[in-house]
Amino acid sequence: MKAPAPLEALTSALRRLPGVGAKSAQRFAYHLLQHDRDGASLLARALGDALVRVRHCSRCNTFTEEEVCETCASGRRDASLLCVVETPADQLTIEQTSSYRGLYFVLMGRLSPLDGVGPKQIGLDRLLARAADPALREVILATNFTQEGEATAHYIGELMRARGLKVSRLARGVPVGSELEYVDPSTIAQALRDRRAVGDGEPRGGAG
Amino acid sequence: MKAPAPLEALTSALRRLPGVGAKSAQRFAYHLLQHDRDGASLLARALGDALVRVRHCSRCNTFTEEEVCETCASGRRDASLLCVVETPADQLTIEQTSSYRGLYFVLMGRLSPLDGVGPKQIGLDRLLARAADPALREVILATNFTQEGEATAHYIGELMRARGLKVSRLARGVPVGSELEYVDPSTIAQALRDRRAVGDGEPRGGAG
Repeated sequence: MKAPAPLEALTSALRRLPGVGAKSAQRFAYHLLQHDRDGASLLARALGDALVRVRHCSRCNTFTEEEVCETCASGRRDASLLCVVETPADQLTIEQTSSYRGLYFVLMGRLSPLDGVGPKQIGLDRLLARAADPALREVILATNFTQEGEATAHYIGELMRARGLKVSRLARGVPVGSELEYVDPSTIAQALRDRRAVGDGEPRGGAG
Repeated sequence: MKAPAPLEALTSALRRLPGVGAKSAQRFAYHLLQHDRDGASLLARALGDALVRVRHCSRCNTFTEEEVCETCASGRRDASLLCVVETPADQLTIEQTSSYRGLYFVLMGRLSPLDGVGPKQIGLDRLLARAADPALREVILATNFTQEGEATAHYIGELMRARGLKVSRLARGVPVGSELEYVDPSTIAQALRDRRAVGDGEPRGGAG
């Protein structure tokens, strides 16, 4: 006994989603065909639509429908600051703080040599071209604080410093609102090393 | 800052997959657009194709491309036995044992009143029509051994017995290859209640 070919094809297409194994793909396929055929049509159309209409911003590399995205096209951003993030989701997280008015570069990934992701795959040539902008003074590295994110930040930092740019990294430390008891020791160690004098009102980075 | 509309639409379409939340949907969308555009096209085509070509077998209700599925159309199955399962995956699991030669009915779900799934939603009217087959003698309930699966089995069992059919349920007990220490107490209790005399070579169900 075998499942009908179009169902098998749907299940194997769903397996290409990251982190989706055989069982989940099968569950998705059954669900769409049995309980949400409207959802299945919607998804098919949304995929086709996104493939045709979504492209990369020629300045910051994020997803956009235009040649240059809204953020890069805005005249009200500080062109002397460039914040380098891994994904559009990270960019959105930073925007939601309302405490950054500079521009962005979105790597759409991170260096991960073991997975075959090298400087070329994360568009570092485009970042270098972007960094040639004479208005630019400081590059803020906001890749994730994972091993790969740190390695990516280090690599990009070296490149940018070699071009005479000021390079900074988001501060590491104890998250706001957290209880020390539940913070991991390496974060505490970092927070101890980077401790700040009380009464020192001047932000170090000055990324405003 | 907002994501481009087609990307938002794709993310919200992906959220309709069961168990997929906002973060996973976003990760899926980014992955497809950034790293697997071929996969995205393939998925769009597979969805459209499955929607057009996959339907329900008019006899057993499983997914098929034909009016009657391969299993139901086979002349080599024992038409006196009907095994009732929740999903095509369950049916496949039973087929893989190579120890059942009867026919199936696939509910495509289970009774779950709290989720609005009643007898009508799992096609019990079609099962009743199917059960009117004069060749049929025994209905084997092979729904899951969960609360909902047990309730579904109980409900269907009553209906079938009322029609004069023999009704059986898959045996409950200790899984083959398991160590007692790691088997949950309710399974052990069930296995004690259903213990079998050693040397009793005759299978009780005779489902083969």
